[in-house]
Amino acid sequence: MNQKTTLTIDELQDRVETVFRNAGLNAIQSGSVARVIVAAERDACKSHGIYRIEGTLRTIKAGKVKPDAVPELAAPSNSAIAKVDAKGGFSNPAAELGVPALAERARSLGLAALVINDCTHFSALWPDVEALTEQGLAALVMCPSYSAVAPAGGKMPLLGTNPFAFGWPREGQPPYVFDFATSVAARGEIELHRRAGKPLPDGWAIGPDGDPTTEPEAALAGAMLPFGGHKGSAIGTMIELLAGIMIGDLTSREALDQLGTTTLAPAHGELIIAFSPEAFAAGRAGNPFARAEFLFEAIASQGARLPSQRRFAARAASEAAGIILTAQEMQQLERLGALGLDAVD
Amino acid sequence: MNQKTTLTIDELQDRVETVFRNAGLNAIQSGSVARVIVAAERDACKSHGIYRIEGTLRTIKAGKVKPDAVPELAAPSNSAIAKVDAKGGFSNPAAELGVPALAERARSLGLAALVINDCTHFSALWPDVEALTEQGLAALVMCPSYSAVAPAGGKMPLLGTNPFAFGWPREGQPPYVFDFATSVAARGEIELHRRAGKPLPDGWAIGPDGDPTTEPEAALAGAMLPFGGHKGSAIGTMIELLAGIMIGDLTSREALDQLGTTTLAPAHGELIIAFSPEAFAAGRAGNPFARAEFLFEAIASQGARLPSQRRFAARAASEAAGIILTAQEMQQLERLGALGLDAVD
Repeated sequence: MNQKTTLTIDELQDRVETVFRNAGLNAIQSGSVARVIVAAERDACKSHGIYRIEGTLRTIKAGKVKPDAVPELAAPSNSAIAKVDAKGGFSNPAAELGVPALAERARSLGLAALVINDCTHFSALWPDVEALTEQGLAALVMCPSYSAVAPAGGKMPLLGTNPFAFGWPREGQPPYVFDFATSVAARGEIELHRRAGKPLPDGWAIGPDGDPTTEPEAALAGAMLPFGGHKGSAIGTMIELLAGIMIGDLTSREALDQLGTTTLAPAHGELIIAFSPEAFAAGRAGNPFARAEFLFEAIASQGARLPSQRRFAARAASEAAGIILTAQEMQQLERLGALGLDAVD
Repeated sequence: MNQKTTLTIDELQDRVETVFRNAGLNAIQSGSVARVIVAAERDACKSHGIYRIEGTLRTIKAGKVKPDAVPELAAPSNSAIAKVDAKGGFSNPAAELGVPALAERARSLGLAALVINDCTHFSALWPDVEALTEQGLAALVMCPSYSAVAPAGGKMPLLGTNPFAFGWPREGQPPYVFDFATSVAARGEIELHRRAGKPLPDGWAIGPDGDPTTEPEAALAGAMLPFGGHKGSAIGTMIELLAGIMIGDLTSREALDQLGTTTLAPAHGELIIAFSPEAFAAGRAGNPFARAEFLFEAIASQGARLPSQRRFAARAASEAAGIILTAQEMQQLERLGALGLDAVD
């Protein structure tokens, strides 16, 4: 069981894509969902990698996502808002469809927004952030999830873990990117503690009685806590407002009500805001990209880490030497590829 | 000294405006700066009220702000970015000038940004947020300040306390508004502890040696800490990038270098983003304002507080019964009004 297998990024993409094709997803959906899973494995971001395939298959099998959805884009030239209707499919092909239009609008107007509606939302936000930083744009991305976090001072789950992500492009190196849950911990981290049978750190969660707990099971039955007390709670609430209610899509509470479980991927929307630093800085002294490097250097030179650096180091290693999977992970991929939806309940 | 004086909001506006007129500010500058100070007193937000007048006078006397500045607006019709050049004056008249153009752009395009450049930045962001929520728009506002906060994992001041503010309009009642420093505490709170001779709570700051401290003096000589660890640090960094570098204005480090002291108001820019919920929600089911009320009710009904509620309660009391000042505060106002810039060093 200690044997490792090394796959190129393309080889892993083929394998993961095959799993989803065999589970009934069309080419648009399977290719796009596989790309974000492979990107996470490439970046050694295991909690968003092939570990997520089974849950995704369960979501498909439960009929919560349209396997043959073809997203549709609307990007009127008199608006700073582009919208993609995911048509009940996954968020990923909708983002891939919308990003070029968003980038065009942001370059033209200075800033613009992409709204994704009616999607089953899958996984991290940094792939969407990086799709924009690759084009020289800054990006702010957010979405609800499903009720799992109590507002500061509250006792019951209401907010989602509502991720908040941002990116700034850098020349000749990976972008400045952060992507974090507005809860103290991501739900996936609590799941990993539960699987490992380890207690949670203090301050992560309250139990069903509203009192603090370190038990993963109690936390999952109770509520997680927002990061940074009332400030994180306020940001989580802002995300419900902007990336749920404002875009005419579900809040975290509505997503949970509709789904009826926290074990499948939730349906809701996503909001992406893109900024053209060149348009904003026009007419002012100094190149914004060069100036940003001084800021990053001032952070790094005092021993503080820029976010995502571990991920980018893993990416460089994967690109150079491939992605290394355990025998167990390889067996899982083969089993899922062979069985398709029969692999899950 | 226990005698209290009750002034109407207009009476206090006249008195504060007179102080600034006598200190040499033109009508645009004095009226606008006085309005935000009076708004803070009205809302019982003492740390941003008349307590701030002396520091503002010192900033004027030090020649750090142009007393006769007349801000200029540029809002091209083919852009989502409106810009106000504050011409070296205070941020407040620049915001007052730019908000109507920003609101027009946001209504027309769905979202838009207002950049304020070359201002001496004065005080809280919520007045700018509320100027937009009053028009039925959601708003996100941020700015640098001056280096006072160490990035997470760092040892030295680099980031500012970089406030982050957001508002959502509500019908028939005050908006949902938050406005907080991305440091654990606002610099003003540390100043108040220093004046009161009280130790700081744990986790607010590090001393000049980079180690944790509860001494206000050591904290002011060392660095404050970001709220929420690496997440708050990342948001503070994002604010340097978007509301400093991207808009072609000073970072917190550059603002401190230029000013040479933390006892005067710093010069830098501000970024305001306005969203039209109606434009974003167009074509989708549900009224976004009505839906938001369910979210607020779900927060309040579990005993959690909405932000700014104390401020709005004080506002209602002030509007009904006037603003109550102590004899000491009244004497201070009279002294400053009589002496103008001679009142400060």
